[in-house]
Amino acid sequence: MAGPGEFELIREYFASRFQANAPGAGVELGIGDDCALLTPPAGKFLATSVDTLVAGVHFPAQADPYRIASRALRVNLSDLAAMNATPLWFTLALTLPESNAEWLEGFARGIADTAHLFDIALVGGDTTKGPLSITIQVTGASEQPLRRDGAGAGDSVFVSNTLGAASAALPILLGEYRAGEAQKQQAEEAFYFPQPQFELVQKLAGYASAGLDISDGLLADLGHICNASHLGAQLELEKVPVAELARSVNPATALETAVTGGDDYQLCFTVPERHLDAVAQLDLPVTAIGRMSAGSGIQCRFNGAPWQAGHAGYRHF
Amino acid sequence: MAGPGEFELIREYFASRFQANAPGAGVELGIGDDCALLTPPAGKFLATSVDTLVAGVHFPAQADPYRIASRALRVNLSDLAAMNATPLWFTLALTLPESNAEWLEGFARGIADTAHLFDIALVGGDTTKGPLSITIQVTGASEQPLRRDGAGAGDSVFVSNTLGAASAALPILLGEYRAGEAQKQQAEEAFYFPQPQFELVQKLAGYASAGLDISDGLLADLGHICNASHLGAQLELEKVPVAELARSVNPATALETAVTGGDDYQLCFTVPERHLDAVAQLDLPVTAIGRMSAGSGIQCRFNGAPWQAGHAGYRHF
Repeated sequence: MAGPGEFELIREYFASRFQANAPGAGVELGIGDDCALLTPPAGKFLATSVDTLVAGVHFPAQADPYRIASRALRVNLSDLAAMNATPLWFTLALTLPESNAEWLEGFARGIADTAHLFDIALVGGDTTKGPLSITIQVTGASEQPLRRDGAGAGDSVFVSNTLGAASAALPILLGEYRAGEAQKQQAEEAFYFPQPQFELVQKLAGYASAGLDISDGLLADLGHICNASHLGAQLELEKVPVAELARSVNPATALETAVTGGDDYQLCFTVPERHLDAVAQLDLPVTAIGRMSAGSGIQCRFNGAPWQAGHAGYRHF
Repeated sequence: MAGPGEFELIREYFASRFQANAPGAGVELGIGDDCALLTPPAGKFLATSVDTLVAGVHFPAQADPYRIASRALRVNLSDLAAMNATPLWFTLALTLPESNAEWLEGFARGIADTAHLFDIALVGGDTTKGPLSITIQVTGASEQPLRRDGAGAGDSVFVSNTLGAASAALPILLGEYRAGEAQKQQAEEAFYFPQPQFELVQKLAGYASAGLDISDGLLADLGHICNASHLGAQLELEKVPVAELARSVNPATALETAVTGGDDYQLCFTVPERHLDAVAQLDLPVTAIGRMSAGSGIQCRFNGAPWQAGHAGYRHF
């Protein structure tokens, strides 16, 4: 059954574009055979992760293809960063309703630019006809992986940079909120160009006891650290670094957006007390917002008073 | 944005089902963190391949989920086999229109049974809401990969077993052809349970100069060997082993079905003259059907007379 001729052509289009893109990542044979052949680095773990982005669910179907590509690859790279792995190679499975040269050109440029920026090689893929969706699998190498299950009771909980921008960006990108130019720019950046936190995680290696990237929202993702580490957590929400965009779009809901909104791809990690000074010395853009505790579940307080999230939940296009 | 709660549950459903399924394939950490952590075998290539199957394109949307799962994983495993790689691990990105417990139960059983049969570990995945499609990426290890680009002029062209059954199966599975019970059984086997040719390829290692699995049809796929090896080929089509099912469904078109129909996942490979005796000694279910030649393109003859394929092309649901 396989793809029709035009989809074969798309495959070759990608293959020719990326043939030269093998930055010493151990690529013996890239696109074009039954399998890619790879030589993994010796003495390290391979870290691998796969994510699917579906049009209308994970991005607006009519979004700019360059931006869709950027987001799709960055979201996957974020999983490598969160594991403290260095990018090696990735595959791209692209399902398209039709062969549209202009769309493909933009999409391929987005993939190529992002791959170049993060020094990762495209080694294989598949192109099929169907409703638009993108599945990317990234593989990296890690000497000292940062897992979810290493947190200890009493460890401090940190987040990187600020939270809430990507979630606050949605009504702007959907045209539901009349934003100014600066807000529009921030929204595009936050949603389509999330920053995998490679540098930050590398500096934290040896100090952080557990960590992950915040894709589903702080509370949901910290919940994953809690579950994996068999602990609970106590947060002081007044300390949460709320993104300027979330504040400017709606000050009343900005904090809730920051703690329940997903898609920021910032890091949430835990640090044992004995390493707190060392982490402070690193002068990183990170903020302590609470502690891990015995038991289970996450207790939130705001200036000492109990705090409950309203019904923010997930937002779908 | 991420998946809604029910899709988180599906992920956990798979994770719990496959937690124990790590047959010494170097799985340090499986499903449930940002990445899987893997220890690849030393001194071998990693071989990796990804394929997407879309409902209504690659399988009937209403097909039995156990069979869909079987086909999806086997089709990917076939790429490992064709590269002479041994299965290690795979990931599963599943996009579903709704969370249907019965469907998922059947699908998960199909994945689990197939993974168990071929000794491959599920190490990661993603579950998203959207039109039904399945993307699987398989990774294996290979000491002596069988590539497409190694054929020499004068090498004999072989195929394994018989061709045309999967393509002949389609009208039966779609209810367009009134088949008997034996035909129905053959059709189900051919289409949903293709056999990755691991054993055959292992025995051919050192003798075969090039090879691949026939997914798009013999002529299309042999064309890939021709292109990669910068050669042409001359086939004697009266020698092609045509599947019994193709003959019984339509004797008049059986040969054309065998040489242009896809989805059989049999092996097409080339053997230099000096190894022909050794290959004959192996007593494998393989048939020589022609030779590689200088130049380009595939020339087909049937009992000496030029032969041209009609308009068989690809068949989509």
